[in-house]
Amino acid sequence: MLSVKPYRGSRDFYPPEMRFRKWMFSRLRSSVEQFGFEEMDAPILEPIDLYLAKTSEEIVSTQIYTFKDRGDRQMVIRPEMTPSVSRMVAGKFRDLKKPIRWYSIPNLWRYERPSKGRLREHWQLNCDIFGAPDPFWADLEILHLAVTLLKNFGADHTMFRVKMNDRRIINYLFENVLKIQADWWAPVARIMDKKEKIPRDEYMAMMTAAGLGDAQIASVDLYLENPARFFADHRDGSPVFAEMEKLMAVAAESGLRDYVEYDPSVVRGFDYYTGFVFEIFDLTPGNNRSLFGGGRYDRLLENFGIQSANAVGFGMGDVTLQDFLESHHLVQNPDKLVHVYLAVFPDPSLLPHALNIASDLRKAGLNVEMNLGQKKMGKQFQEADEKNIPLVIILGEEEIKNNSVQMKNMKNGTQNQVFLENLQESIQSEWEKIYAAKN
Amino acid sequence: MLSVKPYRGSRDFYPPEMRFRKWMFSRLRSSVEQFGFEEMDAPILEPIDLYLAKTSEEIVSTQIYTFKDRGDRQMVIRPEMTPSVSRMVAGKFRDLKKPIRWYSIPNLWRYERPSKGRLREHWQLNCDIFGAPDPFWADLEILHLAVTLLKNFGADHTMFRVKMNDRRIINYLFENVLKIQADWWAPVARIMDKKEKIPRDEYMAMMTAAGLGDAQIASVDLYLENPARFFADHRDGSPVFAEMEKLMAVAAESGLRDYVEYDPSVVRGFDYYTGFVFEIFDLTPGNNRSLFGGGRYDRLLENFGIQSANAVGFGMGDVTLQDFLESHHLVQNPDKLVHVYLAVFPDPSLLPHALNIASDLRKAGLNVEMNLGQKKMGKQFQEADEKNIPLVIILGEEEIKNNSVQMKNMKNGTQNQVFLENLQESIQSEWEKIYAAKN
Repeated sequence: MLSVKPYRGSRDFYPPEMRFRKWMFSRLRSSVEQFGFEEMDAPILEPIDLYLAKTSEEIVSTQIYTFKDRGDRQMVIRPEMTPSVSRMVAGKFRDLKKPIRWYSIPNLWRYERPSKGRLREHWQLNCDIFGAPDPFWADLEILHLAVTLLKNFGADHTMFRVKMNDRRIINYLFENVLKIQADWWAPVARIMDKKEKIPRDEYMAMMTAAGLGDAQIASVDLYLENPARFFADHRDGSPVFAEMEKLMAVAAESGLRDYVEYDPSVVRGFDYYTGFVFEIFDLTPGNNRSLFGGGRYDRLLENFGIQSANAVGFGMGDVTLQDFLESHHLVQNPDKLVHVYLAVFPDPSLLPHALNIASDLRKAGLNVEMNLGQKKMGKQFQEADEKNIPLVIILGEEEIKNNSVQMKNMKNGTQNQVFLENLQESIQSEWEKIYAAKN
Repeated sequence: MLSVKPYRGSRDFYPPEMRFRKWMFSRLRSSVEQFGFEEMDAPILEPIDLYLAKTSEEIVSTQIYTFKDRGDRQMVIRPEMTPSVSRMVAGKFRDLKKPIRWYSIPNLWRYERPSKGRLREHWQLNCDIFGAPDPFWADLEILHLAVTLLKNFGADHTMFRVKMNDRRIINYLFENVLKIQADWWAPVARIMDKKEKIPRDEYMAMMTAAGLGDAQIASVDLYLENPARFFADHRDGSPVFAEMEKLMAVAAESGLRDYVEYDPSVVRGFDYYTGFVFEIFDLTPGNNRSLFGGGRYDRLLENFGIQSANAVGFGMGDVTLQDFLESHHLVQNPDKLVHVYLAVFPDPSLLPHALNIASDLRKAGLNVEMNLGQKKMGKQFQEADEKNIPLVIILGEEEIKNNSVQMKNMKNGTQNQVFLENLQESIQSEWEKIYAAKN
């Protein structure tokens, strides 16, 4: 006997879950399109080279789904969308009008141990801007888009916060302050990321094991605990500090004052980021975690031979977003909409008439569920009721002779004879009553 | 250097192709929902057992994408949707209200040699009805749905034809007329399928090699060439002949007279069909080929321990449908809709104002594309023009002082000063002019 369960870490979308997904994605789509973004898509399979280039090593070595196709090509089920988007931008770079504003909602796969908020298959809204005349403007546009996405679901600054940083500031710390070799940057960054989660002793031991002396550890402390002072000390060493302050200032002046803050601990996992990075956190007490994030990745297109194509974007996962919306009571899950249930008396000769009436109503734009051979009228009414269809059209032999049907409003119990020529009009008028009663 | 091409047999959907796909799918969705169907989805990966059970052997042995996951489970990238749909129906069979009307538009993968109309990745609309009180009514509903899908794109009976048959009629031929063993049914069916495509000699040789004598070959000829006579000869042997005639009659009486015909050569490839089968053919001279098809598969749920769950459905591929729509000039590919381009004079201090105005317009439901740092005004106008955005809002230092902007209609060249408090209203009135000029 075959199992009825979906593959571990993946989800079946029965109609109620699918309605939720469609509602959520349609809200995302209309928000993103308000910013002039266009939807695109790429194949779910890509050659492995695309990921070896720039995706984080952890993902490639332990989390990707990879296999050889029947032609011996090593293929990958995409674990993220940015490499495919970059490939496609590079493929038509000369012909595409800049700036390019693209979005997509692909499904992605990672071999993970499934847990709350972490599944093997998830969907992810990806938004990216390539080739902006001034990348700084694009960073702000992306920041506004990220915030607007959540605000358009009804979320406000009490529910989430954008924490921002710049990879060049972290690089400056490693290169000009700590003066450590490039191959130690990633391991030290990982220890820094643990600072708030582990005891001080353990943190110090790890930093020492990574080769850092007391003065270096003190510099890291200053950077993480007093970034304003760190900025003041190093302002003359690089223009990135003034740029970060400018970004914060313009964000604040353009309506995001309550939403953004500088956070020196934000790094982002992917190796390809080159500048501005951000992460959006849920402010729910006890559930204070990263919802989604993104940043600038100006050099990813170099892998395809395209130089100096600036790029900024983010990816927002459906599982985390759904969890956020549910925990803040921002979910509106619409019902299935069927306007009319067509009930038919138990006479097989009525079937062609029923099909004709259903066709006419559907041609007029109505959603019609027809009885499919249930003989008992009571069960037909029950079916309409269980499916929450408020209007039932009843077709009997007598009615057919008079070119009429019975129409029953399941909400108030009224029932009338209606001539076929007036049927659409009568349905519309009953639906107006049903809407009015609802609101 | 990395390749910019998509994997062989798969497609990149740049925004124009994606707009087409979204237009096509949205038309399909609204047609299917008029019949009361609800959308669902399943993971793209399934365990191989799901396909070993019933999918055609050719697909499993030579065409599926299969691999072992990191936990040593043999997984498949779905080559069709019916097994997943059946698994999900079985998984909640007791709780789901019957009849179940489900649809989905999954992407599917098969390792094929790519050619016109045959790709490795394609999308497929799947529509299925499970648990109808009378399966005969469900067959007719599915038939109407299949025809309506094409009619709602503007297609008519001069463009396509539904050819119908019943697996039980073919089984009757093999079992009661030819009296051949069950394991010879499939090979003989494949030779029958070639009858019109190969010389008579060759056909006869193949039939003889399959063990059929002259009388048996004559019976096959009668069945294929004079089905009315074949029906008359065998009417008493099985109720399926009367049922097929009834199906044709009700279809004709319910508006499908010009669309349907009986065709003894229709078999359908999947092993799981048990009754009514149909195939829809493009009538274009020189391109007379199968567009899509489906049928009844009442026993598929037995693999999950569910007995007597009647089921009927079909799958319609996007590549074939697109080809059909294009060859009959039924395509309407909508433009990207951006209401306003927000141009900004080259003064960085204007950026917060620009972001604020863009936010306000977007809050009012408008789609706004903002300048992202282009300093030359001429280039900003050019950008709006190239992207076919008919209205440009121009923001300069003088205007900000007066709480105003300039508004330029790119279609008629007019330009006016508009105060910010009247901006939304003015945009709406300009857009009404633009719509009026278009229509």
